Amino acid sequence: MGQSYKVAILGATGAVGTELIELLQSRQFPVSELKLLASPRSAGRTLTFQGEELPIEAVGENSFANVDLVLASAGGSISKAWAPKAVAAGAVVIDNSSAFRMDPQVPLVVPEVNPDAAARHQGIIANPNCTTILMSVAIWPLHQIQPIKRIVAATYQSASGAGARAMEEVKTQAKAILQGETPTSEVFPYPLAFNLFPHNSKLTDQGYCEEELKMVHETRKIFGAPDLRITATCIRVPVLRAHSEAINLEFDAPFDVAQARELLSQAPGVKLVEDWQANYFPMPIEASGRDEVLVGRIRQDLSHPCGLELWLSGDQIRKGAALNAVQIAELLVARNLLQPAAPALAT
Amino acid sequence: MGQSYKVAILGATGAVGTELIELLQSRQFPVSELKLLASPRSAGRTLTFQGEELPIEAVGENSFANVDLVLASAGGSISKAWAPKAVAAGAVVIDNSSAFRMDPQVPLVVPEVNPDAAARHQGIIANPNCTTILMSVAIWPLHQIQPIKRIVAATYQSASGAGARAMEEVKTQAKAILQGETPTSEVFPYPLAFNLFPHNSKLTDQGYCEEELKMVHETRKIFGAPDLRITATCIRVPVLRAHSEAINLEFDAPFDVAQARELLSQAPGVKLVEDWQANYFPMPIEASGRDEVLVGRIRQDLSHPCGLELWLSGDQIRKGAALNAVQIAELLVARNLLQPAAPALAT
Repeated sequence: MGQSYKVAILGATGAVGTELIELLQSRQFPVSELKLLASPRSAGRTLTFQGEELPIEAVGENSFANVDLVLASAGGSISKAWAPKAVAAGAVVIDNSSAFRMDPQVPLVVPEVNPDAAARHQGIIANPNCTTILMSVAIWPLHQIQPIKRIVAATYQSASGAGARAMEEVKTQAKAILQGETPTSEVFPYPLAFNLFPHNSKLTDQGYCEEELKMVHETRKIFGAPDLRITATCIRVPVLRAHSEAINLEFDAPFDVAQARELLSQAPGVKLVEDWQANYFPMPIEASGRDEVLVGRIRQDLSHPCGLELWLSGDQIRKGAALNAVQIAELLVARNLLQPAAPALAT
Repeated sequence: MGQSYKVAILGATGAVGTELIELLQSRQFPVSELKLLASPRSAGRTLTFQGEELPIEAVGENSFANVDLVLASAGGSISKAWAPKAVAAGAVVIDNSSAFRMDPQVPLVVPEVNPDAAARHQGIIANPNCTTILMSVAIWPLHQIQPIKRIVAATYQSASGAGARAMEEVKTQAKAILQGETPTSEVFPYPLAFNLFPHNSKLTDQGYCEEELKMVHETRKIFGAPDLRITATCIRVPVLRAHSEAINLEFDAPFDVAQARELLSQAPGVKLVEDWQANYFPMPIEASGRDEVLVGRIRQDLSHPCGLELWLSGDQIRKGAALNAVQIAELLVARNLLQPAAPALAT
């Protein structure tokens, strides 16, 4: 056995936080001690890790003493407030919020795409936005063979992107509608059950919402391709957990469909799901709870000689958030980039 | 008052058929007599038109005697079998199926786009596919100012596209899932509630499904633009009634966003729905039951200097099917292209 680490989860009670706990356990991440941090209103509750009930603590000035690794998933303002303190206390922070993603000092990492970037961290490593991670894993193998010049994406994003309460809200709304009642909305601005609407993140002057611009800017940063042209339309759909994306790719020369299929059938983190006879392709209910991004319907774009179309579904909480963060942590361990501050307990 | 017409609805009991009855009534189409035709299993039932209970008759060899106008919405094979007989009996058939749409002898008409094509009919006028109608209405005003060169579309199609039974199936599935049970599927190949999947129409060798190819070929025919380059990804979503579409347009030169907005704010059949402060844009629940196609989120494509992005929702049963058919009928009346075979009853 190698070293093991004192890990803190910031935002332990959220949809991503609980998935982080599950993943640390199921993937046997070498944890010597797990600290569950959340807002004061969750303090005192407990959550189970490796059969043990662990108390949830309110995050505070002393939360990060002797902590080696912080997995943060409590929103941008919480990360902005606490990540620098955790780093000052000697921890490495893998941050799931958007707070540091576009900071030139902070690597933005999808382990299947740019693992080497992790080594350049100065305390904080950012976990990309969910839609960006899913798309990146699916198209990077193609980009390696022939650089992608332009992406036109349309997303089908599940309620989980807005957290556990949003998932409950959609179910409550669906129940109300099925009973002939008028649904109410608290998390979302409009009813999502049996409906859909453009992503409710802040709109910019360009007419794009922040979610769409994350796909544009984060993909460029992860790919190291500042000139990659990307446009996206991000839509919330009444699906509980996994996101789907229709992706149109343009290259400088035709991309052989058979080659694309072959590449994606072997790509890390990707599962090719294509049964053309049965009209069976990626679906969010089948992507839910799975590690791989399901990719299919790869076809030559009828409208462009150098275009490819593809369709994907991926678990937004898992690969789109928690799993990617844990994979970054595993990468740090594998490359000996994470040093325990405290003496190792496992030998 | 002008003339009035003996009208038959073929497929009167379906989702589109019942909407046709409602529209003939609410739009005061000059009906002297309404004949409701359906399959033998619906014969004997009645439906209400203008306060009167009308019997549903099984379609047969004598169904079209003295009928002036047939509104057909019973599927392609029924239309193929009966439309020629109705025409031989002297009727004009407005057909909602895909049977005749690409027939060079048959006009394919969206009244806001190519009303003049209706005059060239030889008995049959085809009503386009729902996704095609909605997109055509929204983008034609832009195409008039500057020809569209390429379209990349992604659709969000409601259950109603597969008929009334499909809408019930999604509700039944949602109920089952909310009760912790496993949903079953009969109309659709997979559960649609809290899920989505690529459109389940037949796949072609090119990797496109028929629904997607309808958008390609029908739009070209309606626009009279055989070289218009179009690609589409058609997805079924758990929405009951209205379809939505994310549409990326390419022109040969930049298209001013303010001009596009101004054009669409005044375009027939379109309602511009854009409140950028409130993040309020077209939604299927608001498009349901409405005549106009709701269009919004018009923005300069970040990835292409000559690109525009827009988003729309439109009632699939109404403008996407029944309303468009009735508007074609109204067009025939207004242009004196529909002659009553029987003596006019209204004077």
